[in-house]
Amino acid sequence: MKIAAIIGSSRAGGNTQQLTKLALKGIDYTPIILKEKQIIPIDDLRHAEGGFQPVTDDYENVIDTVLGHDVLIFATPVYWYGMSGLMKNFVDRWSQSLRDDRFAFKKEMSQKTAYVITCGGDQPRIKALPLIQQFQYIFSFMGVSFADYIIGAANAPYDILKDERALAEAKRWNETFLK
Amino acid sequence: MKIAAIIGSSRAGGNTQQLTKLALKGIDYTPIILKEKQIIPIDDLRHAEGGFQPVTDDYENVIDTVLGHDVLIFATPVYWYGMSGLMKNFVDRWSQSLRDDRFAFKKEMSQKTAYVITCGGDQPRIKALPLIQQFQYIFSFMGVSFADYIIGAANAPYDILKDERALAEAKRWNETFLK
Amino acid sequence: MKIAAIIGSSRAGGNTQQLTKLALKGIDYTPIILKEKQIIPIDDLRHAEGGFQPVTDDYENVIDTVLGHDVLIFATPVYWYGMSGLMKNFVDRWSQSLRDDRFAFKKEMSQKTAYVITCGGDQPRIKALPLIQQFQYIFSFMGVSFADYIIGAANAPYDILKDERALAEAKRWNETFLK
Amino acid sequence: MKIAAIIGSSRAGGNTQQLTKLALKGIDYTPIILKEKQIIPIDDLRHAEGGFQPVTDDYENVIDTVLGHDVLIFATPVYWYGMSGLMKNFVDRWSQSLRDDRFAFKKEMSQKTAYVITCGGDQPRIKALPLIQQFQYIFSFMGVSFADYIIGAANAPYDILKDERALAEAKRWNETFLK
Repeated sequence: MKIAAIIGSSRAGGNTQQLTKLALKGIDYTPIILKEKQIIPIDDLRHAEGGFQPVTDDYENVIDTVLGHDVLIFATPVYWYGMSGLMKNFVDRWSQSLRDDRFAFKKEMSQKTAYVITCGGDQPRIKALPLIQQFQYIFSFMGVSFADYIIGAANAPYDILKDERALAEAKRWNETFLK
Repeated sequence: MKIAAIIGSSRAGGNTQQLTKLALKGIDYTPIILKEKQIIPIDDLRHAEGGFQPVTDDYENVIDTVLGHDVLIFATPVYWYGMSGLMKNFVDRWSQSLRDDRFAFKKEMSQKTAYVITCGGDQPRIKALPLIQQFQYIFSFMGVSFADYIIGAANAPYDILKDERALAEAKRWNETFLK
Repeated sequence: MKIAAIIGSSRAGGNTQQLTKLALKGIDYTPIILKEKQIIPIDDLRHAEGGFQPVTDDYENVIDTVLGHDVLIFATPVYWYGMSGLMKNFVDRWSQSLRDDRFAFKKEMSQKTAYVITCGGDQPRIKALPLIQQFQYIFSFMGVSFADYIIGAANAPYDILKDERALAEAKRWNETFLK
Repeated sequence: MKIAAIIGSSRAGGNTQQLTKLALKGIDYTPIILKEKQIIPIDDLRHAEGGFQPVTDDYENVIDTVLGHDVLIFATPVYWYGMSGLMKNFVDRWSQSLRDDRFAFKKEMSQKTAYVITCGGDQPRIKALPLIQQFQYIFSFMGVSFADYIIGAANAPYDILKDERALAEAKRWNETFLK
């Protein structure tokens, strides 16, 4: 079981990333720090003559890495009650991969299992629910199995270390991953 | 009453933009085509020494334009059951404006009225509801009045012209704006 | 195409019922006024020896009527951000019908098309969205096709007659039903 | 701190009730078993001459008990992706209490803290989210503080004892209540 953690935070070492590290403590996994990649917003050429064109940024490399793993952890802070723009730019580009005949994107993704970790500061256990529902629709469309999610409460740096529920859930995930 | 339409589509003249044009037919308004602007994802420096730093892209110009209007129409296609990355990158940057002491961003925004137009292809009247809830949380946080929304059903180009409900709602908005 | 309207209002002739009548103007349909029926809350005997027992109230008659129609309009006011208790008591009893071997409840229901009409007074176009999502899950579980919904804004009697959007949508439904 | 648990299950000793008992282990609390009370669906007389009339069932007694407590635990199975009809019938009647001038219902409720426990069998951590959002709107309207919720996964009797997350959360609540 190969695990990749796709990190959508714009701040290195923030709460979301800390929680992800706790969930993956002692596990061999591939971190994919979107902040360190250049992934430009999609240019919707679905209906253009010739379709999508190659884009010279890091997206293809990232998606190659993603496809080489079985378990995907989507870790994003709650920005404005949704996933970060960094994460959204990445997901939006899947529309291009869906039409890329060099590989069977949807079929390959449908064999994967996804987890979501998100941290927010404004009543996240209520106000991040639309984000969870969005991820559910995304995974459902792709046939990805949505295993579980953690919503952490955190605003200032290191706040997450005070959220006992989130810490306990991360620990339980960790025990599962270690098996 | 000055109206701005913030367009988050990546395809020019797509369904969302068409619906927006119908809602604003005969109205003097400012289109803000995010696709034609460079707005890079936020670098979260809220907790860094010195705070946010100036960014040399189009964001400041766009936000200046936005602040000069009373009514804001957020028009975004449903990409992966959420707003487009282009739109999200823009909204994420509000976190920087909130901490910009050159102007009272939240206070100015709280005097505005917002509308949302979104078009999607996969059961949008159900699967775009998390997006509407997200906008509600965004506007509520900022004190913006959320006047109304239209969810259009459209996938291929010009599909929206077959969605009679969406067309009727756009027409009703148009009559209101024309008064 | 036989149409039944299942009315969950506790007040006769209220906004929800008025809107339903407008949607069905000139149409031959069967009104099922739950207020006039006795449908007691379910007694969950799924796991009891012997399973569900016959209940001497109006539920069986109502469900027989329902099964004799092709199109079902679920009309309920928004009470406390959900369907009325009258409507919920009725739907809860479906668990009993699912285990009733005298007929193939799920299979029969899966051939039907459902519409939802709901009216509320407190930002219903936002705060009734969980109710719409709930109906979606209900219909999806049963295999019922969820054709459309109208959320009306109304609090005091006859308020609905001022909600131009809801009236226009009811009229559009009516035109469809009349075809 | 006086705690009441309002149980909306129709099956005695079911998963929801078990989880509630675990959360309240060793705590002195008042169980309110709605199944054992007669609470008839509301008759909406808000707009009738004379307003609401006295109803001869157990509602008034129940609400008196509720008002005598500081912490309210709303425990309901997920029935058809929502609270049980028993629970909904109870909540619907609050509309009557809001207009009862013998006491200040909203004001008294606004001093209370609420918890929600719910168990469901069909992807409850996704499909019970509209129910959580509904409770949020209910509590927000009443000014009740919404402290926390647990969504348990359980279908057959005693399933809940296998849901380690739910058990851990109940235990953490228990530790808080014991302090």
